[in-house]
Amino acid sequence: MREIRLALVGFGNVGQAFARLLIEKQLELETEYGITPVVTGIMTGRHASCINPAGINLEQALSNISQGRPLTELDTFSFSGDTLEFIQSCPADVMFETTPVNPISGQPALSHLRHALEHGMHVITANKGPVVYGYRELKELAARQRLGFRFESAVMDGAPIFSLFRHPLRGARLLGFSGILNSCTNLLLERMGQGESLEEAIAYGASIGITETDPSNDVDGWDASIKVAALATVLMDHPLTPVEVDREGIRGITREMIAEAEAAGERWKLVCKAYWQDGDFVARVRPERVGPESPLYSVGGTSSFVNFELDVLPGLGVLESNPSPKTTAYGMLADLIDLEGEQA
Amino acid sequence: MREIRLALVGFGNVGQAFARLLIEKQLELETEYGITPVVTGIMTGRHASCINPAGINLEQALSNISQGRPLTELDTFSFSGDTLEFIQSCPADVMFETTPVNPISGQPALSHLRHALEHGMHVITANKGPVVYGYRELKELAARQRLGFRFESAVMDGAPIFSLFRHPLRGARLLGFSGILNSCTNLLLERMGQGESLEEAIAYGASIGITETDPSNDVDGWDASIKVAALATVLMDHPLTPVEVDREGIRGITREMIAEAEAAGERWKLVCKAYWQDGDFVARVRPERVGPESPLYSVGGTSSFVNFELDVLPGLGVLESNPSPKTTAYGMLADLIDLEGEQA
Repeated sequence: MREIRLALVGFGNVGQAFARLLIEKQLELETEYGITPVVTGIMTGRHASCINPAGINLEQALSNISQGRPLTELDTFSFSGDTLEFIQSCPADVMFETTPVNPISGQPALSHLRHALEHGMHVITANKGPVVYGYRELKELAARQRLGFRFESAVMDGAPIFSLFRHPLRGARLLGFSGILNSCTNLLLERMGQGESLEEAIAYGASIGITETDPSNDVDGWDASIKVAALATVLMDHPLTPVEVDREGIRGITREMIAEAEAAGERWKLVCKAYWQDGDFVARVRPERVGPESPLYSVGGTSSFVNFELDVLPGLGVLESNPSPKTTAYGMLADLIDLEGEQA
Repeated sequence: MREIRLALVGFGNVGQAFARLLIEKQLELETEYGITPVVTGIMTGRHASCINPAGINLEQALSNISQGRPLTELDTFSFSGDTLEFIQSCPADVMFETTPVNPISGQPALSHLRHALEHGMHVITANKGPVVYGYRELKELAARQRLGFRFESAVMDGAPIFSLFRHPLRGARLLGFSGILNSCTNLLLERMGQGESLEEAIAYGASIGITETDPSNDVDGWDASIKVAALATVLMDHPLTPVEVDREGIRGITREMIAEAEAAGERWKLVCKAYWQDGDFVARVRPERVGPESPLYSVGGTSSFVNFELDVLPGLGVLESNPSPKTTAYGMLADLIDLEGEQA
């Protein structure tokens, strides 16, 4: 049995779901994979931070958060420095990063990951920012340090995308992909099809916690663009930032246009695409009308879908339905199991 | 660089596509994975069989077959015994099995795989028969012999299904699945929707090489049932044979029923399902009407789709479009890379 010490940087919905999943899967992790994860530090934005080299009681930590009480009330050492100091102080083997995405620079997550790698920790993040802005640097740093850098949950929550190429799709070359990667706009377009205005649909999205803090991140296609950039950077070895993606959001789509498409048996979707064409790399996000013969047509609500075109598989689609913070948390757990499998 | 000697048992469409893929991917296999596959034996049904410990020229072998000439014309040792003798005689590290499926017993493929494992070869098969009828036995035999037993191409051609659970989905528990696993009936129902009778559609399927030798294998749901059984056996640890699947084929579906469904905006699909319900295992294949909100609705032509329900991922779908023998061949190559990765 191998004890693995985890430092959690960020303890919002995903961080908490990850803690719950660690509790739920504890026995399975021990019996199936021979690992015992012990959380030695939690850094939060609003509930103070704590470190306990002997292990933090996750049930208590979750209970405190749910009651709006600080983690420092636990039988742990409270910690009052910044995140970089936290990373230096927390005795951990793996850092889990779940702070909010910064689509402009990937910061401060990028610095957190760099710092953790420099201090000898594997890093696992659900944050696409550092993947887009620091993939090569972090990958090389991790390799030099003989450490792992994993980010399965950065795109399509916990659905296996990056790990699909890491293992099952070895020997295959990715030629291009297309799909619906921003589930928020997908939901907004669906609500507009039911008669709501964009503003009403956004308000609904916010009420169920789907719309991100800044709606323009979704509505203007930035979130989709950063996901296209992440997939192109990692899977096609073509580094790309969101501004390099030819981007058009859904603000130009009216209820009338949606009704017109519906009358023709079609639906508007915010479609992501990237592929090589005559030596040029094409990457774009824009609203398109899709018919019932397209796998994108039935992708509804908060589901997402990506279709890969490979030299050896003409079409391989991955559909993720009904994601939740638990789904994202699972992607991070899968990263941990994969990383530990490589170390064992 | 590690040389791996391969014995090919079966050299039909898939076996030949595999040989072409070995040629196409030779450089990549050497540079990316450090392996040099060398085919030392080919056993065919109609073109005689040959063994050459120094390696068979695959270009010549493919050329001979395409001209209807026997393999024994090559600069190789001809071989005239049966398959079991071939396996004993061929100096190989890995046996590739691509003989036709026997849905009743999995034979003789099951014996071939057993024999190869007993003689110290890893085995890779595209044949679902031995997976359904010999999974546990072959898995245990392979483990005792410290050899690999892989069968990615047994279900949904080369799309990653079994390998998805082997690596990326570790730590996840499969609760059930549903999908369209027999692309032939999917095509037949589509053709019937365009006005053909079942017989006309079958004739078309045969003309493009889609319908299997015995159409009842597809039409009566046997092929779908054996795939359900394979997935349940391997992925849900619930051994099942095709006769244990509650099975109804598409013979009862008339053009009128298809037109009626179409008028209601729906389509008939041969739907496969397996799941646990109140402690009972439910496994069935039967025609169902699906609407445009279902991911099954847009699965057309020879595409196939499966949706997995996991404890940590409410819905994870895999869609395979436009498969060909090359797709199946790729699944076997991926198996080889995976297996060699474990040995390295």
